[in-house]
Amino acid sequence: MSASRQRLAVTVGEPAGIGPDLCVELSHRINCDDLVFIGNRELLEERAEQLKTSFSGTVHDIPLTAPVVAGELNVSNSQAVLHSLREAAEGCMQRRYAAVVTAPLHKGIINDAGIPFSGHTEYFAEITGGYPVMMLACPGLRVALATTHLPLRDVTDAITRPLLEKVMRILHNDLVDKFHIASPRILVCGLNPHAGEGGHMGREEIEIIAPVLEQLRSEGINCSEPLPADTLFTPKLLQQADAVLAMYHDQGLPVLKHMGFGEAVNITLGLPIIRTSVDHGTALDLAGSGKADVGSLIAAVNCAREMIN
Amino acid sequence: MSASRQRLAVTVGEPAGIGPDLCVELSHRINCDDLVFIGNRELLEERAEQLKTSFSGTVHDIPLTAPVVAGELNVSNSQAVLHSLREAAEGCMQRRYAAVVTAPLHKGIINDAGIPFSGHTEYFAEITGGYPVMMLACPGLRVALATTHLPLRDVTDAITRPLLEKVMRILHNDLVDKFHIASPRILVCGLNPHAGEGGHMGREEIEIIAPVLEQLRSEGINCSEPLPADTLFTPKLLQQADAVLAMYHDQGLPVLKHMGFGEAVNITLGLPIIRTSVDHGTALDLAGSGKADVGSLIAAVNCAREMIN
Repeated sequence: MSASRQRLAVTVGEPAGIGPDLCVELSHRINCDDLVFIGNRELLEERAEQLKTSFSGTVHDIPLTAPVVAGELNVSNSQAVLHSLREAAEGCMQRRYAAVVTAPLHKGIINDAGIPFSGHTEYFAEITGGYPVMMLACPGLRVALATTHLPLRDVTDAITRPLLEKVMRILHNDLVDKFHIASPRILVCGLNPHAGEGGHMGREEIEIIAPVLEQLRSEGINCSEPLPADTLFTPKLLQQADAVLAMYHDQGLPVLKHMGFGEAVNITLGLPIIRTSVDHGTALDLAGSGKADVGSLIAAVNCAREMIN
Repeated sequence: MSASRQRLAVTVGEPAGIGPDLCVELSHRINCDDLVFIGNRELLEERAEQLKTSFSGTVHDIPLTAPVVAGELNVSNSQAVLHSLREAAEGCMQRRYAAVVTAPLHKGIINDAGIPFSGHTEYFAEITGGYPVMMLACPGLRVALATTHLPLRDVTDAITRPLLEKVMRILHNDLVDKFHIASPRILVCGLNPHAGEGGHMGREEIEIIAPVLEQLRSEGINCSEPLPADTLFTPKLLQQADAVLAMYHDQGLPVLKHMGFGEAVNITLGLPIIRTSVDHGTALDLAGSGKADVGSLIAAVNCAREMIN
């Protein structure tokens, strides 16, 4: 495939949120020749006008059902949001796009429209096949998660040997294939404080995590023992790592967002397509205000471009 | 009490660990006129010799039972370690000392000596009365913990209204009394990812955490709603906070240790005495090597001095 045909799909996301604002802003901040915005053309032009600017990106137009008021969710447009995701995902599978970059959508309003929907990631996994693994990245740090959006109460039982093995293999393989790192070094968090302190504060490290990591090391995967999260995330150890695997959401993401807020990227590993995303929500209160920060979307586009090349 | 009598007790900790090294190094790095080292004088002098330097601090001598080899734990000296803690704690209660600063000890070897022992913090609480709350601090951030050294599986059930209310009151009162902040602003983490996302990922925020915080706010305590941990720890929000309350160990400490490693201080709130500590362990492999970093002990002494004044 020639470089000129390496086009990226950028889904505009929830029409009433900051997605359209960010796409408009993006078109003024970076060269968008390789981007196709998947969303409603009229909405993008209207939002640009509201922001006292213009929009001239390439659009794959998705019709909307109802007029859009910035900041006001409307169930009538939920189908259109899903159409844009489907176009992007199918376009990637058919090689019309080399990657998809997603602006934020609003799960709640899609569910309110009567459509069961758990999020971008799960939707793309359903269309493309594969087991999605969430990874966030910012300059100097990549953090993948063994479990994602679970109540804390359910995390411990979700950490099983088959799950960890699957997630670790996906993380390793995608660091090799999509990030072009020959022998990625992965630091792995324990589940419990102090990684269980030799079994005194939980035995999951001994019974579940360490055996999986030992098996993977014996196959040549370059991964650590289960490490205490509070020492793992110190700069000295992070320098040695290409990625960290955290066992759960709030163990891994606070440091990443502390280091990278405003330019963190959410990357879905484990799919047959390349997908990156902003790390924030629809920020309905900022839609149309000109105050939305385009940093994460720029970072998501740049990350997808690097993964393609 | 005159300033000249504001003496700080510094417990030397595990004889075979880096505690003695750090005390020797401390005596060369900062003015130690107000410090009394609680430990074995001969050990300090020997370790200084091993490090090719000298030691001349004021010592409250605690006899040892067995000779000490750097790096080699010996159950025979466990009683002496406990004697040093008792001297420091009782000295604080009797106002012979204005605060205690602790170098690291080794819980395992004390237990191996047949003495049930869960740690410095619990031991001081037993001697002095009070409910201990663990807080770590580094330049720009203080993080207190609602729960500390529990397996992750047990955290959710440990978060109760009475516990949170008790911990929040101690945190607020100690920020006022010991840190001299008139109206401290406390940001509080939710328990679940995204602080439960309105009940979709756990209901503890709605049923337990938010009601306690609402009650405390109605009494004039300046605290937030339960906030998602991954956005709470971003620099923008942290700037607005005098302290963060995290619900559990690995939610709160990774960012703190990322920001402050090498100069983080562990402070025990809720006791009738002032107690600060290093944030690291005995590092047996570094004892006698000259490679131990005294940064955290210096920070712990300076923190205790600020709390006294």
